[in-house]
Amino acid sequence: MSIEQLNSENPIGIFDSGIGGLTVVKAIQAALPSERLIYFGDTARVPYGPKSQVTIRKYAADDTAILMRYQPKVIIVACNTVSALALDVVEKSCGNIPVIGVLKSGAKLAVEWTNNNRIGVIGTQATVCSNAYACAINQLDPDIEVISQACPLFVPLAEEGFINHPVTKLVAEHYLGEIRKQDIDTLVLGCTHYPILRQVIEETIGGGIHIIDSAEAVALRTRELLSESGLLNRSGKASVPHLLVSDLPQKFSMLYQLFMGSELPDVDLVEV
Amino acid sequence: MSIEQLNSENPIGIFDSGIGGLTVVKAIQAALPSERLIYFGDTARVPYGPKSQVTIRKYAADDTAILMRYQPKVIIVACNTVSALALDVVEKSCGNIPVIGVLKSGAKLAVEWTNNNRIGVIGTQATVCSNAYACAINQLDPDIEVISQACPLFVPLAEEGFINHPVTKLVAEHYLGEIRKQDIDTLVLGCTHYPILRQVIEETIGGGIHIIDSAEAVALRTRELLSESGLLNRSGKASVPHLLVSDLPQKFSMLYQLFMGSELPDVDLVEV
Repeated sequence: MSIEQLNSENPIGIFDSGIGGLTVVKAIQAALPSERLIYFGDTARVPYGPKSQVTIRKYAADDTAILMRYQPKVIIVACNTVSALALDVVEKSCGNIPVIGVLKSGAKLAVEWTNNNRIGVIGTQATVCSNAYACAINQLDPDIEVISQACPLFVPLAEEGFINHPVTKLVAEHYLGEIRKQDIDTLVLGCTHYPILRQVIEETIGGGIHIIDSAEAVALRTRELLSESGLLNRSGKASVPHLLVSDLPQKFSMLYQLFMGSELPDVDLVEV
Repeated sequence: MSIEQLNSENPIGIFDSGIGGLTVVKAIQAALPSERLIYFGDTARVPYGPKSQVTIRKYAADDTAILMRYQPKVIIVACNTVSALALDVVEKSCGNIPVIGVLKSGAKLAVEWTNNNRIGVIGTQATVCSNAYACAINQLDPDIEVISQACPLFVPLAEEGFINHPVTKLVAEHYLGEIRKQDIDTLVLGCTHYPILRQVIEETIGGGIHIIDSAEAVALRTRELLSESGLLNRSGKASVPHLLVSDLPQKFSMLYQLFMGSELPDVDLVEV
């Protein structure tokens, strides 16, 4: 299917390693309330962050193939780890359908915000080790200094609901203590789980630092792209997202509420 | 292959959702230094603890099939979550080969130790919700009271090397504060990662409580079973375990050292 054949009524496809990408769903619903959304979360193999590039690339191809069954007009890679290590795999797996990764969207917005050319990035082990944020930022402006920090415990803390817990404050201090001394003026939340812990992160990193939520960044970029290519759905009605997952664990409903602030709708289970 | 056809020189097969089962490998090496060990860790799909029973049962069948290629004389389920939710799947997948799960071994040892008939059990969400420890303990002695507590953050804390960190002490206080008031005299570490955090767990739960390490329990049970069935390898030489994994992430070597206290040997990558 070429981009000319895409129909504005087709859904926006979004995928993530698990449920973290729901922060992207929420941001897209807010920015584009008339669009149909289809979301796939690979809950049977989550998390991707601590795994190898080979495995992450294999999973990215599987995830794209699942969304392709629903003829999306655009595919959004809500997973920072996949955006960092396997965006080309997604692009190759979906023909001419445009692909938007959270990473490049977040990098672009951070470059627009920084005044002192010092940007901090926090993310999973795989995202930070890939150096993909620094590359994307320096492609836009080679003079910007990027200071990165992996924060692997933030995902389990968010998923366990330790939102404003003293444990989370102590972990945030452990991870962000060093980056706080680096005179950054902008901090990218380079993992879709991190907006859940935004308050603790903001308090720990200190005042005057602009926080870039990659979920909001990707929503802005999606609106821009659909508008430019005449694919905005102007006649659609606000609807609940169509949810696909590869596993339905006991606490899925609790996590959905934590991320979306609303009751869990029907969910389809798909095999990976 | 019937149990009569099994050869004492065949290896002991051990599997786990990831690298946590290496605590079982270490305990078996100590108890049975002349045995050949083959270990499979499903590092591409770890963790199992937060996932659903359907998915855990599917993964258990895959893991058993991988070990079966090496003609083990016994299969040890080093994963408490699989032992709790899918031991029958493993038994069905491996014909007449004896299967030993960490869970029943841990339960048996705890029943032998308790004097006041009050046993605490800590484990993953899936293990605790399955109620499998309480069932196994009460099958041996219906008068014993079992007090269980899921400690989902212990696994990521152990894997991040937060061994004696103030964060781990605070998390331990959060999980164990309530169980400490329950007058237990025995506590089962119902997850193979927990021995890594044993010191913090012991300090938090308080003195006078006997800790059951399910890795040590399963090693004792394995020696017993091999001895009873004439399958002890009396002529073997101590050797490094044969390691199979489904993913080889960057920090695998660091984690191997954390669990085994020795340098990482050669590792084979297998597809699941």
